[in-house]
Amino acid sequence: MTGAPAAPVALSRSRGVLHALLDAPGRRNAVTPELLDALHAAVDTAEADPGCRVLVLSARGEHFCAGTDLTAPVPEPAAGPEAELPYWTLLDRLTRTPVVTVALVEGRATAGGVGLAAACDLVLAGPGARFRLTEALVGLVPAMALPFVARRTGEQRAFTATLLAEDLDAPAAVAAGLADLHAGEPAQALRRTLVALSRVDRSTAGALKTYRSRLFPRDARLGQDAGRVFLDRLTDPAVQPLLDRIPTPERAV
Amino acid sequence: MTGAPAAPVALSRSRGVLHALLDAPGRRNAVTPELLDALHAAVDTAEADPGCRVLVLSARGEHFCAGTDLTAPVPEPAAGPEAELPYWTLLDRLTRTPVVTVALVEGRATAGGVGLAAACDLVLAGPGARFRLTEALVGLVPAMALPFVARRTGEQRAFTATLLAEDLDAPAAVAAGLADLHAGEPAQALRRTLVALSRVDRSTAGALKTYRSRLFPRDARLGQDAGRVFLDRLTDPAVQPLLDRIPTPERAV
Amino acid sequence: MTGAPAAPVALSRSRGVLHALLDAPGRRNAVTPELLDALHAAVDTAEADPGCRVLVLSARGEHFCAGTDLTAPVPEPAAGPEAELPYWTLLDRLTRTPVVTVALVEGRATAGGVGLAAACDLVLAGPGARFRLTEALVGLVPAMALPFVARRTGEQRAFTATLLAEDLDAPAAVAAGLADLHAGEPAQALRRTLVALSRVDRSTAGALKTYRSRLFPRDARLGQDAGRVFLDRLTDPAVQPLLDRIPTPERAV
Repeated sequence: MTGAPAAPVALSRSRGVLHALLDAPGRRNAVTPELLDALHAAVDTAEADPGCRVLVLSARGEHFCAGTDLTAPVPEPAAGPEAELPYWTLLDRLTRTPVVTVALVEGRATAGGVGLAAACDLVLAGPGARFRLTEALVGLVPAMALPFVARRTGEQRAFTATLLAEDLDAPAAVAAGLADLHAGEPAQALRRTLVALSRVDRSTAGALKTYRSRLFPRDARLGQDAGRVFLDRLTDPAVQPLLDRIPTPERAV
Repeated sequence: MTGAPAAPVALSRSRGVLHALLDAPGRRNAVTPELLDALHAAVDTAEADPGCRVLVLSARGEHFCAGTDLTAPVPEPAAGPEAELPYWTLLDRLTRTPVVTVALVEGRATAGGVGLAAACDLVLAGPGARFRLTEALVGLVPAMALPFVARRTGEQRAFTATLLAEDLDAPAAVAAGLADLHAGEPAQALRRTLVALSRVDRSTAGALKTYRSRLFPRDARLGQDAGRVFLDRLTDPAVQPLLDRIPTPERAV
Repeated sequence: MTGAPAAPVALSRSRGVLHALLDAPGRRNAVTPELLDALHAAVDTAEADPGCRVLVLSARGEHFCAGTDLTAPVPEPAAGPEAELPYWTLLDRLTRTPVVTVALVEGRATAGGVGLAAACDLVLAGPGARFRLTEALVGLVPAMALPFVARRTGEQRAFTATLLAEDLDAPAAVAAGLADLHAGEPAQALRRTLVALSRVDRSTAGALKTYRSRLFPRDARLGQDAGRVFLDRLTDPAVQPLLDRIPTPERAV
């Protein structure tokens, strides 16, 4: 339960499935540069293995992911090209990779952690799952997470969940569309989902995901605009007093 | 209960909240030029006061809003720029103003009255609330209301509610996404919503609303096209016999 | 119950309503060139009769429609203009014709058969209705059906139904938005729907449908792109072993 310098993500492989376990419970699996590197590497690993059809993200500890760690130095607000927004590019890759991506959420997904789950093709919500976009409470806008939330929930529900910082349990998340399945027995639900996915080969799933992107195109500048909106708020002097309300050991959003 | 020349909207202010009460129950709070002026003025007032975070629309009487009054002279079908469509611009402002807009619907919202509620950021539906797009029954298309309904309900549900002129009570409206909350106790629900909203400052809510518009852009000509579609039907000779079915004292839609 | 050379669709007319009965139960009402011709002809007939307000599609036998017949020769993958994609153009016409289109689904709608139902303005699902997009199981992407499914269900639900080849009964189809009504008593539900539709004249329904297309425009190249994606997979050598799993007498998808 300490923020040891151990790898923040543990990978394991079984029958066409790569399991990526977020394994920094002492940091509440907050989004750090190291976590993003490790998750990008997990996608790389899955893509490089032609026998890998599914990538499962799950987490050890009470938190699936606590959102963006704010103790690290803030990047320049004049955000560069999209490639320099590793959170955005990770979410985008999760939606585009021919590997089917599954989030098994058994604890709290908060702020940017909601976006991480929402970007996956399938979200299974265990009995202890909670989803909460807390950004507005501290003066921020979840600009990078929202497009991934909204493609699941529709426009209005993504907006109200943010404005009211609603704390959604598994049934509420399924009702909102944020999760696909309320999994009373998470291990069993994951097993069944993997069996269902074993009937679709990687090339077909990839073609389906590519066509989804064609049918619902995102405009090419959205990533940069989203990054800029997030950073503009984060560096706004008027927002600092709000951010300072967050207890330091937990500065993530 | 008469259509007295009193102001159609009564304003009151308390702790960061401007309450705008539609107060022409004798006219069923139909959309008249006077009502539109008064509601535009309410938005002006809320925006001009930097301490105002929330604008609440509610109504006195059995009708939240009966839709567009048809006893007034019809504007030219060759509708001018969007600024000359005060109903459209009001709805658009309700979605864009940094002030959070809340509709507390306790009676009937009909035709254009549905659009007025739907354009608000949050819609609370009391036990007596009913939502009904009646336009198609009299030969019209709710062209200006539909975009605001559909961003809540999605495309198909906005369409079927119109085609079938469904009469939705509060639970049905919530199920359709037209309302956000079925408020068994409206006063209490409003109080709780205002407490939740008190945690988000005006600048943050404004940034969130601006980003919503960026994420779900409306094409720039939609307002004019919608106004033209509405007026084309309203002035179509073939539609007059259908309009004439509406009893004169209630000519609104 | 044989694939007799009889007409695959039987038309009948009553009080402003054209009933088109898919009548090839021996072929599970699979989408053949003959069925497409007959359904295009049904739309022509309905449109040519100014007194016709509603077109109802229903089916005889256990299958509403089993999807595209794969025993026919496959068209060239370098698909020509949209006019050469009669399945796509049929679905598109069902959404655009001023005649209100209603699918009464009492049996199984499979693969392309789901698209046929989904393209109708209203979908009534009887107690025996099942909806299943099976394409991914045999290496295909339901590229032409998906836009029509997604405008009902939203993006994510259309995607998961495809990826998991979910077998949706009537209540599940309504929950997903794929059907509008779970009709415990199909004949009665159809009668009530026709009564509701009798209050809206053809010109008004047509104006509403035209405005829907304006509000939710489809990009002009989508039909051709969808046709190409479907045919690319169908003719991909890697997909043939998957297609060969389908028993020959039932080769439809």
